[in-house]
Amino acid sequence: MKKQIYVLQDILGTNKKVAAEIRAACEERGILLLNLMSSPGAGKTTLLENLADSLKDSHRLAVIEGDIETERDAERIRAKGVPAWQITTGGACHLEAKMIARVLPEVSPDIDFLFIENVGNLVCPASYDLGERLRIVLLSSPEGDDKPKKYPLAFTSAHVLLLTKSDLLPHLPFDVERAKAEALELNPKLRIFVLSALTGEGLNEFVEFLLAARRELRAAHA
Amino acid sequence: MKKQIYVLQDILGTNKKVAAEIRAACEERGILLLNLMSSPGAGKTTLLENLADSLKDSHRLAVIEGDIETERDAERIRAKGVPAWQITTGGACHLEAKMIARVLPEVSPDIDFLFIENVGNLVCPASYDLGERLRIVLLSSPEGDDKPKKYPLAFTSAHVLLLTKSDLLPHLPFDVERAKAEALELNPKLRIFVLSALTGEGLNEFVEFLLAARRELRAAHA
Repeated sequence: MKKQIYVLQDILGTNKKVAAEIRAACEERGILLLNLMSSPGAGKTTLLENLADSLKDSHRLAVIEGDIETERDAERIRAKGVPAWQITTGGACHLEAKMIARVLPEVSPDIDFLFIENVGNLVCPASYDLGERLRIVLLSSPEGDDKPKKYPLAFTSAHVLLLTKSDLLPHLPFDVERAKAEALELNPKLRIFVLSALTGEGLNEFVEFLLAARRELRAAHA
Repeated sequence: MKKQIYVLQDILGTNKKVAAEIRAACEERGILLLNLMSSPGAGKTTLLENLADSLKDSHRLAVIEGDIETERDAERIRAKGVPAWQITTGGACHLEAKMIARVLPEVSPDIDFLFIENVGNLVCPASYDLGERLRIVLLSSPEGDDKPKKYPLAFTSAHVLLLTKSDLLPHLPFDVERAKAEALELNPKLRIFVLSALTGEGLNEFVEFLLAARRELRAAHA
């Protein structure tokens, strides 16, 4: 057990250093780096497709996709006209900063928003800083309103919580106020948006939030 | 990297030995041990509540619950009159055989069905044999029909696939035939059931399957 713990500390220590380098490189160039995490099927790729539609005419976007297998998600993003890099982890349950560092030199330095879509997993990705300025966790209504306290690190470490698939709420026992209250109890600073990819609910507000975050980053590094 | 791999091999090797001991102990006693795995919120606990309603009057059930935090799932099972043990992993993303071995002496030896509900995670639990005779993976319709090939180990290593929340299919782009075909391409021996906890669809067939599996186990160890 001790050996496992030492190795993990080693990995997380190295990861932190690489993440700090990524953060510095992106912020210096005015790139807003975002790390999206959630369970499988909570709507990360669909959200990125919607953000592509909303932002790609006015801003430069790029996406790094993390999956255990397949290029499916990167293909969906490329179909929207947005450059995407697929990292397949071949079994590993999360992305690490060194995987991002390997892709970063290929990403154009004049990008406005660089999204990382993490492996679908509400547990392991939360332990790995990827150098992001904003960590965004998605919780879809079919997963249940009891999830924040059952998977706390994803919620305590995030800046933003997106409650997705709100169009399914009429068919589900999900209590939005309970989910919000539980998440805020874990992390009072969490910004929460209720979204539906189907009806478009909440998308404009979230886009405005992203634009403001980018302006803040540019002002801080002006 | 090498050090990580050696430590992991070490862990998996030890896990396999403990799992073999659990398997032998359960099968000798005629206990059908089942390991349920899925993403968070795919319906594992709800399925166990339904199985409790269907089986508890005629058979002896027990449940071991795995969660990162909270006793919530064990409380739901106990409310059904079924004994339940909660393992909280305190951050770890999966159950290991040694955790089950620690609980097993407390479980009555005259149980018919012992269900293990793994941590909600479609990735990591698939690497850990817990000594189960049947491994059951749940995929809920809101997660999307493209998940088997994106998270292959859970599907290649399972005996049974449950496509849950079928009542939501009218509201979703999920193609049941696509999900089945993709899962069977990965694992042609997979038994597949389409279930809804709301409408009861598929539950009787699945209960019949469990009863037959228990008869087979008893016959093999008669």
